[in-house]
Amino acid sequence: MNTKRNVYLKKKTLKEAHEILYANFPGNGVLSSEIVPVADSVGRVLAKSVSARFSSPHFHASAMDGIAVKAEYTYGAGETSPKELVMGVDAFYVNTGHVLPENTDAVIMIENINDVGDSRVEIEAPAFPWQYVRKMGEDIVATELLFSRNHVITPYCIGALISGGLFEVPVLKKPKILIIPTGNELVDWRKDSFKDLKPGQVLESNSYVLGKLAEECGAVYEKQDMVLDDLDTITEAVSTAIEKDCDMVFIIGGSSAGSEDYARPVISSIGDVLVHGVTIMPGKPAIIGKISGKPVFGIPGYPVSAIVAFEQFVRPIILKMLGQTVYERDTATVEPTKKIASKLGVEEFLRVKLGEVGGRIVATPLPRGAGNITSITEADGIIRIPNDIEGIKDNEHVKAELLRPLQSVNNTIVAVGSHDNTLDVLADQIRGGHTGVILSSSHVGSMGGLMAIKKGVCHIAGSHLLDINDGTYNISYVKKHLPDITVKLVNLVLRDQGLIVPKGNPKEIKGIEDLGRDDIFFINRQGGSGTRILLDYRLGQCGIDPGKLMGYDNEEFTHMNVAAAVLSGRADAGLGIFAAAKALDLDFIPVVTEQYDLVIPEIYFETDNIQILLETINKEEFKTRVVALGGYSTDKTGTIT
Amino acid sequence: MNTKRNVYLKKKTLKEAHEILYANFPGNGVLSSEIVPVADSVGRVLAKSVSARFSSPHFHASAMDGIAVKAEYTYGAGETSPKELVMGVDAFYVNTGHVLPENTDAVIMIENINDVGDSRVEIEAPAFPWQYVRKMGEDIVATELLFSRNHVITPYCIGALISGGLFEVPVLKKPKILIIPTGNELVDWRKDSFKDLKPGQVLESNSYVLGKLAEECGAVYEKQDMVLDDLDTITEAVSTAIEKDCDMVFIIGGSSAGSEDYARPVISSIGDVLVHGVTIMPGKPAIIGKISGKPVFGIPGYPVSAIVAFEQFVRPIILKMLGQTVYERDTATVEPTKKIASKLGVEEFLRVKLGEVGGRIVATPLPRGAGNITSITEADGIIRIPNDIEGIKDNEHVKAELLRPLQSVNNTIVAVGSHDNTLDVLADQIRGGHTGVILSSSHVGSMGGLMAIKKGVCHIAGSHLLDINDGTYNISYVKKHLPDITVKLVNLVLRDQGLIVPKGNPKEIKGIEDLGRDDIFFINRQGGSGTRILLDYRLGQCGIDPGKLMGYDNEEFTHMNVAAAVLSGRADAGLGIFAAAKALDLDFIPVVTEQYDLVIPEIYFETDNIQILLETINKEEFKTRVVALGGYSTDKTGTIT
Repeated sequence: MNTKRNVYLKKKTLKEAHEILYANFPGNGVLSSEIVPVADSVGRVLAKSVSARFSSPHFHASAMDGIAVKAEYTYGAGETSPKELVMGVDAFYVNTGHVLPENTDAVIMIENINDVGDSRVEIEAPAFPWQYVRKMGEDIVATELLFSRNHVITPYCIGALISGGLFEVPVLKKPKILIIPTGNELVDWRKDSFKDLKPGQVLESNSYVLGKLAEECGAVYEKQDMVLDDLDTITEAVSTAIEKDCDMVFIIGGSSAGSEDYARPVISSIGDVLVHGVTIMPGKPAIIGKISGKPVFGIPGYPVSAIVAFEQFVRPIILKMLGQTVYERDTATVEPTKKIASKLGVEEFLRVKLGEVGGRIVATPLPRGAGNITSITEADGIIRIPNDIEGIKDNEHVKAELLRPLQSVNNTIVAVGSHDNTLDVLADQIRGGHTGVILSSSHVGSMGGLMAIKKGVCHIAGSHLLDINDGTYNISYVKKHLPDITVKLVNLVLRDQGLIVPKGNPKEIKGIEDLGRDDIFFINRQGGSGTRILLDYRLGQCGIDPGKLMGYDNEEFTHMNVAAAVLSGRADAGLGIFAAAKALDLDFIPVVTEQYDLVIPEIYFETDNIQILLETINKEEFKTRVVALGGYSTDKTGTIT
Repeated sequence: MNTKRNVYLKKKTLKEAHEILYANFPGNGVLSSEIVPVADSVGRVLAKSVSARFSSPHFHASAMDGIAVKAEYTYGAGETSPKELVMGVDAFYVNTGHVLPENTDAVIMIENINDVGDSRVEIEAPAFPWQYVRKMGEDIVATELLFSRNHVITPYCIGALISGGLFEVPVLKKPKILIIPTGNELVDWRKDSFKDLKPGQVLESNSYVLGKLAEECGAVYEKQDMVLDDLDTITEAVSTAIEKDCDMVFIIGGSSAGSEDYARPVISSIGDVLVHGVTIMPGKPAIIGKISGKPVFGIPGYPVSAIVAFEQFVRPIILKMLGQTVYERDTATVEPTKKIASKLGVEEFLRVKLGEVGGRIVATPLPRGAGNITSITEADGIIRIPNDIEGIKDNEHVKAELLRPLQSVNNTIVAVGSHDNTLDVLADQIRGGHTGVILSSSHVGSMGGLMAIKKGVCHIAGSHLLDINDGTYNISYVKKHLPDITVKLVNLVLRDQGLIVPKGNPKEIKGIEDLGRDDIFFINRQGGSGTRILLDYRLGQCGIDPGKLMGYDNEEFTHMNVAAAVLSGRADAGLGIFAAAKALDLDFIPVVTEQYDLVIPEIYFETDNIQILLETINKEEFKTRVVALGGYSTDKTGTIT
C-alpha cells in the first residue's frame, strides 16, 4: 500500500470558508434564462420583471347578480318613494362578471329590486356611481409591473400572470450539477449484476441524497456513472463537465488527506483548491475548488459529512445563482437532556431529537458519528456548538435549528429508557392513527429512563427492572428512585430474555452458567440497563464473577446491536430479547420471561397524547403485530399498576 | 333572463364547516399504495413501515486510515516502551471504509505509527478494542424499522433507505382530482383561436392556481376541458370522474346562489350538499358536497375566494388522505397601520403587507375584494378577523399568518406614500441586487406618507407636495407635519404631471382651464395625494370651483388607475403622470414638472437597507430605465436635502 499522504491546507473556520466561498462565487448573472409556459413555472425564478399585457378586469364588470343602472337615474328613490325603472331602457339584468351595459355605471343587487311586471322593476334606494362594479383595471392595469426579477413563482402568482395575459414567462435556467461518486468500495445497486452485499462493499447513496437536496434548492443534476478511484478518469470527467454546460461539480468521497483521496489532486491539477478542510464536525474534509470560474466541491464520503458540506457550502451558492436570499432555518430554544462535551476549535453540528415536555423543549443527542445517516434522518433539530466552547451544560438553554415544524415537535411523546423492538411497532401504530402524534424513543436503559423522568425530560420511560427480593418488576425501583413523583406503570409486553448465540449454537452454550467458560466471548449491555441488571443477578446466582467474563466491558445500547455483534462474530453470546435473535436469524437460549412496563408520570397520564398511546396499545392490531415478532406475550398489555 | 335563484343553505361558520368536513371525510385508508423507485420517492408518503434489509455498515469497517490490529497484542506499548508489530502478521494497512481483517478488532491511526523498515512498524500507545472501528450495524441493523408509515420521504431518508438495502418503497398513491372550470365568460387561452380579450371575457386561471396548490399538497390533478354553464354537461363530467378513479372533484365557479350557479344543483342531483355558504370572506359561496363517499367541492369563482376555499377545506382533506397532520401557518404579532372595520358574523381573511419598522412588524392592509388576485400575490401575511369582532384598532397587536419567512419580512423596506411608476423600477433594481432586501410600497398619497412616518409605520415615504408660496416641494410640509422628526429628503425623480386624455384628445382639452366645461367628466385622485393638492391649486388659479367639476368625487389611488379610467371611457380626463398615459397609449397635456422625493427619517438613513436603496437609485442602470418610461428626468436623482 502507498502510504504517501496529501496534507490539508491550513483548515479554515466555517466563517473563513464562507468568506472565501462568497468572494469567489457571488452568484449574480451566472445563469442564462429560458421561456417556460406559465403552467410549468411554479417554483421557478423570474429572470426579469414581468408586466401585465391586459388589465384585469378587462372591462367594467358587475360584481353582483342584479340590474345595471345609471346611478343618477336612481337618485331620489326611497322606501316611501320607490322609483320605477324600465328594463332594457333604464336597467339591464346582469350576473356577477357580466359586462356593464353601455351607459350604466352602477349595479343594484337582485335582492333589492321588486319586479312589478310589464318589464318594469321598482327600487327603494338610490345607487351611488360604481357601486357593485369591478372597474376595469381594479386588480391589474395593463403595463403595470406584476413581479420583479428574482421573484419565485408560486401557485398564487400563476393566477396573476394569466389574468395579466402572460402565458409564458422568462425564468432563470436551473443550475446544472454533475455529481461524481468516487470510491472503489461503492456498489452501484442499479446494475442488474447486483445481488447481495459483500464485505467491504458500500451501497452508493450520497449521490442520490445530494442530488435530491440540490433539486430542492432549484438545481438539476446529472450523475456520472460510477467512477473508480482513478485520478485521470475523475479529472477527465470534471474537466469535460466544466467545459460543457455544467455550472458546478461535486466529487463525492476522497476529499480527505489519505493516499487514495483524489478530490484535491484532481481539482488542483486543472484549477484552484480554495479551501481544504474546515473546522466543522461532521464535514471537516470538505473541499471548495474553482475550475474555469465554476465551483467544484469535494464532498466528504460519510453521509452526514456530505449533507453538512452540501448545506453549508453548496446550497447557498445554488440559491445565490438563483437570486435568492439564504435564510437560516427556524430555531427554538431547547434544553439538552444531558451534558454534552465538545472539542475546542471545532464547530459541531449535533443532531438531536426534540420534544416538548412540561413546557420546555428537551433535546436528546443522537449518535455523533458522521457515518450514521440515521443520526440525521431521526433528528428533529441541530444544535450548533461553536468553536470556542467546550460543551453544553445539562439543562443549559441553547438554540436548535429545526428540521421539522415546531408544532410537530410540540406534538411528540418523548420516550426515554429501555430499548424494546415493540416500541417501533407502537410508533408505527400511533403514526398510522392520523392524530398527528409522534412517538420518539431514545434508548438509555431502564435506569436511564427513571432518571429522565426524575429530571422531567420525558413523558414515558420503558423499564424492566427486576426486584430480586420479591420478583416484581419496576415497582420498588420507582419507589426508591422517584419518591417525589407519582407515576403509573402500564404494561407494554411480557418478553423472553435469553442468550443470543450464533445460528447452530456452535459453542453449545446451555445457559448463563456457561458464560464463565474461557472459550466464550461475551457482548454486554450498558450499565443501568435492565438487561445488565438481570445478567449481573443471574451471574451472581451461578456464582460467576462478572469481572471474569471475557468481553464484559464491551457494551451495546440495544438488543439489536447485541444481536448484530453476535452475527458478525464479535461475540459468542449476549443477553437479549428473543425478537432480536429471531430478526437476525440467530439461536436463542431462553433465560426468563420478564415484564416490560411504561412508567408514566401522573401529570402526563391524562393528556390527549398519552391517552392516544394507551388506546393504541390496547388495540388488537398492535397486539397481533407484537406477537408476530416472536418472544412476546400481550397477556398483561395495557394493565395499569 | 331567468331570475329564479337558488337559496343558500343556512350558512355555516368556519368551525361548523370544518366539523362537517372532517366528520364526512376522515381521510384514513382512502388511498391505495404503489411501489416507486427510491430515487423518485422524495416527498412521497410511506404506505407502510419499512425495515432494513442490510445492516450498515455491513461489516466491521475501519473508521480511519491506519493499521488494523488485535487490541490485546498492543497492550503495554508506551512512549518509552514502543511495541513492534509485523505487517501482514500482527498488523494490516487499512484505509477508511476498509473491511477489518480477520482477527483484528482495532485501528491505529497512520499518524501514530512509525515505519521502522523490514515490514515492521512501531507503536507508542496501546489500542483499546474497537477503537476507530465502525462496527457492523452501528448505523442500521438489518430488520430494524427505518421509517413508520405516513412518514414523508426526504432527501436525507433516501440515504438511509439505500444504505438499508431498500431500492424501492411502498408509498400512498397521490390523490387524484378532477378540476372543472365553469362559466361561459371564461376564455381558454391555450386554444390557438385565442387572439385578444373581448369585453365580457375572463382568462381562465383558477384551475391552474388550484391545480398547482393541490400539487403542493401532494395530489395530482386533471383539468376538464372548458365546460360551459350547462347543468347536464357538468353533472356528466362529475359523475364520470367519481365513478372512475378520481378521489375528489372541484367545480370552479357557479357556487353562489344565482340563477346560473350550477355547482349546487349538480352535486345535489347525484349526491349530497353538506355545506353551502360559509361565513368567511373571501370564500363565502363555498360548497362542500359528497358523491359516492367522495368529496366534491364547489369553489367560488373569484380568485381569492377560490384560494381561501381551497386552503380551508380542500388542503386539509388532501393532507389527511395522505396521513399528514394539518399544521397552521407560522404567525407573527403585527400592528395594522390603520383601523380596520370588519363585519360582525363574518370571519375575514385580510391580506396585508408586512415589514419590520422600528422593532415592530407593521401590517398594511391590501384591497379586500375577493376578485383581486394581486391582493394575495402581494401579501406577506393574512390577518384573520374573527366573526365576533367588529374590527381591529389602530396599533392593536394581532396575529398574522405568514406567507413569507419572517427573516424576509424583517429585511423589507416599507414605503408608504405617493404612487409613482418608478417605485416599481426601484423595487426591481433592488431585488436584482442580490442583497435580500425587498422594497414594499403602499400607495396612500403624499400626505398619507407623511402621516405614516409620523406614526412610525414606514421607513420611507414618496412625496411631491408643492408649497404654493415658494414653489418648493415637501420641505415646508415636512416642517409643518413632522416637527419632531428629523428627516432627509432624497430626490427620486422629476416628473411631468398633466392631463391624461383619450387617444386623439377627442374633447380637445387644452389644459386645467377646460376642466370646468360641462361636457367633461373628470376622474380624481384621493384627498391628501400630491396630485389632488396640485389639481386644487391649479383649479384655484383658473378660478374654477372644484365642486363644479363633474366626477370630482370619483377617486382613484394610483396614476395607473386614473389612466385606466380614461382608457375605459369612465372619464374624459384625469390628472396624472406622463408615464401612466404613455403606458396605456393615451394622450397627455403637460401641466407641470414636479419634484418627487423620498422622505426618510434620519434614524433609518444609515441603516444597511436604506444605504442599499440609495446606492441603487444612484446607479446608471436605474436612471436609464426611469428615463425610458418617459416623462421623467433624473437630473436631481439622489440629491439629498
